[in-house]
Amino acid sequence: MPQEKPLFERVALIGIGLIGSSLAHVIRRENLAGEIVVSTRSPQTLQRAEELGLGDRYEADAAKAVEDADLVILSIPVGAYSAVAKQIGPHVKPGAILTDAGSTKGSVVRDVAPHVPEGVHFIPGHPIAGTEHSGPDAGFASLFEGRWAILTPLPDADPEAVEKLTAFWTACGSKVDTMDPEHHDRVLAIVSHLPHIIAYNIVGTADDLEAVSKSEVIKYSASGFRDFTRLAASDPTMWRDVCLSNRDAILEMLGRFSEDLAALQRSIRWGDGDALFDLFTRTRAVRRSIIEAGQEVDAPDFGRHPEIQTPGE
Amino acid sequence: MPQEKPLFERVALIGIGLIGSSLAHVIRRENLAGEIVVSTRSPQTLQRAEELGLGDRYEADAAKAVEDADLVILSIPVGAYSAVAKQIGPHVKPGAILTDAGSTKGSVVRDVAPHVPEGVHFIPGHPIAGTEHSGPDAGFASLFEGRWAILTPLPDADPEAVEKLTAFWTACGSKVDTMDPEHHDRVLAIVSHLPHIIAYNIVGTADDLEAVSKSEVIKYSASGFRDFTRLAASDPTMWRDVCLSNRDAILEMLGRFSEDLAALQRSIRWGDGDALFDLFTRTRAVRRSIIEAGQEVDAPDFGRHPEIQTPGE
Repeated sequence: MPQEKPLFERVALIGIGLIGSSLAHVIRRENLAGEIVVSTRSPQTLQRAEELGLGDRYEADAAKAVEDADLVILSIPVGAYSAVAKQIGPHVKPGAILTDAGSTKGSVVRDVAPHVPEGVHFIPGHPIAGTEHSGPDAGFASLFEGRWAILTPLPDADPEAVEKLTAFWTACGSKVDTMDPEHHDRVLAIVSHLPHIIAYNIVGTADDLEAVSKSEVIKYSASGFRDFTRLAASDPTMWRDVCLSNRDAILEMLGRFSEDLAALQRSIRWGDGDALFDLFTRTRAVRRSIIEAGQEVDAPDFGRHPEIQTPGE
Repeated sequence: MPQEKPLFERVALIGIGLIGSSLAHVIRRENLAGEIVVSTRSPQTLQRAEELGLGDRYEADAAKAVEDADLVILSIPVGAYSAVAKQIGPHVKPGAILTDAGSTKGSVVRDVAPHVPEGVHFIPGHPIAGTEHSGPDAGFASLFEGRWAILTPLPDADPEAVEKLTAFWTACGSKVDTMDPEHHDRVLAIVSHLPHIIAYNIVGTADDLEAVSKSEVIKYSASGFRDFTRLAASDPTMWRDVCLSNRDAILEMLGRFSEDLAALQRSIRWGDGDALFDLFTRTRAVRRSIIEAGQEVDAPDFGRHPEIQTPGE
């Protein structure tokens, strides 16, 4: 239900891709801000945002966009944070909340905190939501519904500001958790970064084969491969930056994954059917838990077959 | 449109899981057989098939089920083929077509061919379709629609029988390709077996972490991980057998995957952003091709958000 009185007078959205444009939609729908100011580096994207009517005002200059905003949200690739923070820092007004939607949090604290003026509430954040599409056309108001938003406030964060930002994400439809940036980065390394890296890798491997043609890979992809192509179609700039910004946690998870894969490969080589069966049984329960937690659709094949209802298990 | 006259007088479905029960539904809908005989090893499953009305007759004994059938379809885990072929072989009538839906074809030729009597047309097959659900409740008539069915006839196969089986799969809604069993097994190793193995592995890795709790993995799974849990929820017996039956091709693909992953890991460790960006860009095109080929839904996030239409790319 839309707010009677906006939570914020002016929100500045820096970056207007999938996350930024989804925020614009839901802020509008829920009446979360009196004014939405949109800024992004590319003139084409800014123009497209205007054509889509995502904001009330459009600024090519991010420093101008944040002026007098009481909420500033960065939704840009994490590799660009340092430069943008340096640019906008001096122009964010005291008392304002500065947050973001980046997939890594340690790097964000490192890159942004030095540029945050006294009196500005810097509270890093990360909505756990997305699709494989990107750009201002990709956003939609319900993206955050039922998903989690993680905040990683610094030890000296103002509780009232954290509460206000929590109210914002709640109004967007999200559930909110707080944790420290290091823990966030380890959690995301396994639930998000590793899956994307593995998906990119397997699609690359398939694309490189000589003995199997590209057309065969495409024709028969419904047997499993196509699932991986979704994550592997995600925004390349965003994911390059994630890999560079969360290196240590990603390398740790990759090490564990490869170790487990070597053991699984050995079971296949030596025909250890029991070991295979045990692993393949254990993993089944995980999906059931995710569906029960409301984080996945309860329909076979992700609901790709709308003509059928969920059959009994 | 249903056939005016059934293609076959009597079809025997040996195994009545996801594939067998989907066949039962589409055979009925399209009037592809005068009579459907269902057989499966487990008395509970056979009873459930009867409750669901999947067949016209139910036989605990597969040898009895195949009597006088002019089409026999094995839809059982490939590890069970040898024993079942030995059991039913002598009872399949001359002139009948004996085919299957197994995910490996070299092992099927090896395990079944020795038990096929003179005059029976043994044509291994594999519909490239499925969901992560299993059992007689999981089937639905449209499973094969628009998907490929691969036949791997032996060199001395009767062209007329191959043509008739092709007509059968076409009537099920499939497109049909033929290739030799070795090539099938290499193709499926990359498009199906490797993706499943990788999915099982990553879900296992996540389940084993100490630093990240199971509840965190589940809560934040919408950031990528949940995609992998679908394949990792597939039938454990089926997939154990696939791993054991297509060992060589799977080990080859695993070798390539791990080699590529080591290179990718090195790019992450040494901060080679250009290499990451290049790979992440190249993989994006593969998904577009799969959607254009009609092998994937043209909606963001597999259509998990029915409230939105496909945004412009």
